[in-house]
Amino acid sequence: MDKYFAAYLASFLDADGSIYVQLKSNTSYRYRFQVYAQITFYQAAKAKAFLEDLCALTTFGYIRERRDGICEYIIGDTESMLALLDSIEPYLRLKKEQAQLLRTIIMRKQNITSAQEFVALAELVDRFRELNYSKKRSNTADVVRQKLRDEGLLTP
Amino acid sequence: MDKYFAAYLASFLDADGSIYVQLKSNTSYRYRFQVYAQITFYQAAKAKAFLEDLCALTTFGYIRERRDGICEYIIGDTESMLALLDSIEPYLRLKKEQAQLLRTIIMRKQNITSAQEFVALAELVDRFRELNYSKKRSNTADVVRQKLRDEGLLTP
Repeated sequence: MDKYFAAYLASFLDADGSIYVQLKSNTSYRYRFQVYAQITFYQAAKAKAFLEDLCALTTFGYIRERRDGICEYIIGDTESMLALLDSIEPYLRLKKEQAQLLRTIIMRKQNITSAQEFVALAELVDRFRELNYSKKRSNTADVVRQKLRDEGLLTP
Repeated sequence: MDKYFAAYLASFLDADGSIYVQLKSNTSYRYRFQVYAQITFYQAAKAKAFLEDLCALTTFGYIRERRDGICEYIIGDTESMLALLDSIEPYLRLKKEQAQLLRTIIMRKQNITSAQEFVALAELVDRFRELNYSKKRSNTADVVRQKLRDEGLLTP
């Protein structure tokens, strides 16, 4: 990726984007929760063509038009998120910490070998919510810990 | 200015900034209106330090904290606006046309020799409002034309 374009993307993410990670309840998962991450750029729907340009230039992600007049450019798969972070991280100013934490979470997620480790990962996701000033905190590490204990996957 | 920083600023202006020009009624001016221009970057007040960093790095403009929890980094003097545009214009994607029009307005403003020319300049300001989807259009070129006719400065 062209470095000026990377600096541009970093800034747009700082201004009108978000990096977020959350835990989604999903009983088909080994530890009952899915670690769900996404990097998103937002614009009013009238700037959809602009977001499509960004998407074409990065060669990953996709565009979604919401019903409330907002258009999103979404990068959600692990490989693409890591590739994007590699390019833009040096230029981030407001969301550098989120970028580093997302990278850590992705890496650790791939090497979880116990419920204990999964709870530790959930704690990193809690930290993410703090960075994003997120108010909704339904599936916290505490909730994960309790669920895994209830199901006998984690010893108290 | 470092070019990666210029690309960053361009993007931030595209996302959370504005370039605007308006006509302010002012009877002490030769043609009764002041052409008032400003380049502004916006952030929530909690990101004030970030805007101060931008301001320190560009070495021009100033910070203003509004009462509604928004912080502004403002570049309003002609020389600084032109210097900023010189650096960031190549990297702008959404506000390139506004940047070019601001430059044109600043240049023409310095060489106004008749009321006729001033009205033509006011028409460029009208065009600016269209680019910015601005709803308030109190002092349009029509208003300027009428005022200058009323005062005998412009022959009908």
